[in-house]
Amino acid sequence: MRASTKAGLIHEIGHTLDRVRARHPIVHSITNYVVMNFTANVLLALGASPIMAHAPEEMEEMMELADALVLNIGTLSAPWVDSMLRAASAAQRRSVPIVLDPVGAGASRFRTETARRLLHEAGPSVLRGNASEILALAGHSGPSRGVDSAHATDEAAAAATSMAAATGAVVAVTGARDLVTDGKRWVHIHNGHPLMGRVTGSGCAATAVLGAFCAVETDAWKAAAGGLVVFGIAGEEAARSDPRPGTYQVLLLDALDAVSPLHLEGGARIETGNAAVA
Amino acid sequence: MRASTKAGLIHEIGHTLDRVRARHPIVHSITNYVVMNFTANVLLALGASPIMAHAPEEMEEMMELADALVLNIGTLSAPWVDSMLRAASAAQRRSVPIVLDPVGAGASRFRTETARRLLHEAGPSVLRGNASEILALAGHSGPSRGVDSAHATDEAAAAATSMAAATGAVVAVTGARDLVTDGKRWVHIHNGHPLMGRVTGSGCAATAVLGAFCAVETDAWKAAAGGLVVFGIAGEEAARSDPRPGTYQVLLLDALDAVSPLHLEGGARIETGNAAVA
Amino acid sequence: MRASTKAGLIHEIGHTLDRVRARHPIVHSITNYVVMNFTANVLLALGASPIMAHAPEEMEEMMELADALVLNIGTLSAPWVDSMLRAASAAQRRSVPIVLDPVGAGASRFRTETARRLLHEAGPSVLRGNASEILALAGHSGPSRGVDSAHATDEAAAAATSMAAATGAVVAVTGARDLVTDGKRWVHIHNGHPLMGRVTGSGCAATAVLGAFCAVETDAWKAAAGGLVVFGIAGEEAARSDPRPGTYQVLLLDALDAVSPLHLEGGARIETGNAAVA
Repeated sequence: MRASTKAGLIHEIGHTLDRVRARHPIVHSITNYVVMNFTANVLLALGASPIMAHAPEEMEEMMELADALVLNIGTLSAPWVDSMLRAASAAQRRSVPIVLDPVGAGASRFRTETARRLLHEAGPSVLRGNASEILALAGHSGPSRGVDSAHATDEAAAAATSMAAATGAVVAVTGARDLVTDGKRWVHIHNGHPLMGRVTGSGCAATAVLGAFCAVETDAWKAAAGGLVVFGIAGEEAARSDPRPGTYQVLLLDALDAVSPLHLEGGARIETGNAAVA
Repeated sequence: MRASTKAGLIHEIGHTLDRVRARHPIVHSITNYVVMNFTANVLLALGASPIMAHAPEEMEEMMELADALVLNIGTLSAPWVDSMLRAASAAQRRSVPIVLDPVGAGASRFRTETARRLLHEAGPSVLRGNASEILALAGHSGPSRGVDSAHATDEAAAAATSMAAATGAVVAVTGARDLVTDGKRWVHIHNGHPLMGRVTGSGCAATAVLGAFCAVETDAWKAAAGGLVVFGIAGEEAARSDPRPGTYQVLLLDALDAVSPLHLEGGARIETGNAAVA
Repeated sequence: MRASTKAGLIHEIGHTLDRVRARHPIVHSITNYVVMNFTANVLLALGASPIMAHAPEEMEEMMELADALVLNIGTLSAPWVDSMLRAASAAQRRSVPIVLDPVGAGASRFRTETARRLLHEAGPSVLRGNASEILALAGHSGPSRGVDSAHATDEAAAAATSMAAATGAVVAVTGARDLVTDGKRWVHIHNGHPLMGRVTGSGCAATAVLGAFCAVETDAWKAAAGGLVVFGIAGEEAARSDPRPGTYQVLLLDALDAVSPLHLEGGARIETGNAAVA
């Protein structure tokens, strides 16, 4: 990467955030019913422009408008898989970056198999999941807590690195500590706050933020790292007044609107390297 | 119209608002997944009573209960179009007013064609869209920003006037300035606040408010003007403390509960006339 | 019941609440689009862990993870009924408690018949509805306000008691005063606040809370009473600052996070007995 130092990466993330605010990229999300409203508001708060549609009839045309495509398999059903594949195919033809969120992979064969199929057929730029989901995609069988993780980020580090190398997708494993790897470069992100786990769809919202970042930054590894740093710092800012979860959700949207490159300079807590994950 | 002056119209809008609060009209919305929760809360905050249902089996019976029907084509899929047409048919038989929101018309042929079909077959009392959606329905091809407008209200004024005259629907074009026309009478509404564009579904929520107003006011032009004035003033009230978008969404619901005829007397900023749009 | 006094029951409810917080039971909800996000956030605020899924392919596996199943027929469509029956069948085999919310029973034959079918085939531990819904299930025809009640709780007391005795489900009728009966034991709950009726899905959220309580308390009558007392007290706490409905919804989530056994000791307003409903 051009910016070889940590400070350089943080500086670049600030510029990427500025580009999101300046360009208002259109992020087309095919996502789950539970988080649609919150995800759209997260994108608007950040400065991006959400579209949500799933009819097969309009996937091609929606991708003519979109600057990024987010595929999220929460509340999945078979007809939506078809629409996701159509949208992904249109995105590939137009070089629109795709971000995949394998919500609940490992909790059912339907989810695991659909997530694998999308990983291989859609060719996402970024795959973002919790440690259990990434491990399930890598073929590890283990306990599932449904849509929550039963594993820490570190447990999925080797699987994430191999998967990134094998698929060409940047893999982002989120948890108390986040890991973003393209198989060669890695970054650990320590930003974020436990209250994020008390708001439904905070992981899905992070994925949408990565979509917005991928829309304006062609290096998907930097885009994913940047999106998670910005989302994590917003999560910390929202927690400053020690709110309870209802108020926290509202303040998280406010913080996504307020977060600036200046916050990043002081607040980004990352480690990065080029070899195997530390 | 009986109230020939601007002050008279504002006074009538206050009475219409009072009727919504007194009668709690049931507004049946067939709307998109993204905004269902917010729309229902907007209707409750205003004083109306929301129903949401889409199964073809129950459209007829739901329309026996409803005082207005809102059709919104966001997150559209083919089976929902069938339910919308069934509900519209039942509404027509019972003289229940219909309000149509052509979300994303122009962004895909599926949306544009469905919106046109509903405009002609459902026979809505009011059609509410942004300028790009109204222009797309009128057959103008042009740039699309998906569900956002790429045009100013004025650019759609001629199309709105012609469409109103041709279809019998009152056409409401919303944006920085709103236009409501029945082809003969017009009103420009300057109420509202830019923060409304930072909350997903604020346009859809405006449409639902028009549904509540149409339920208690048979002159659809007055109902549409009234709903937009009330929604716009609530949007201004919610912005008074200069909130960020998360907090703003919460305050917008609070303001819809608080807005009163007194706010209208001081706050409505409208111009009205009887000839071609100024 | 072991706790023969009112104070004893309240004390037990406090322990049940503590168990929800300690065990984070997974509540699988097949529920309506309008309330999914709010319901998930209610469960998270309370300390439970939500899953939402509806694909027939994964109902069996999701029930391997779940500690309770909530079936809610708002925004019902035929394919979802099939998934509900599959999930219920899996729940029965695993002795996972089921809570049924017959949203809008009485408003359409489709809703009434589906609710009856689920009541008989799913074998719920608890049925929670408003008075009109319970009366509709009992075969009383009468006015419907759609998803709102046209009747007071007392009007449904006899029907609830008979239905509980006949089906084996605890019946919870909610309104200004709540009634919970298993056909022999009854409790009246006076907690709650009128503002709850200004937030969409507050009834559905109450049902989800009952799911979390049933996950950790095998006596479904105590679980249902406990869930309604806790939800009602949270509803009162949220109203203390006299908020408007938007702010109230946020504070309700905060209050569900904050409510403690201590609040119950001082705040639970219940009457209980063993004979016919007083």
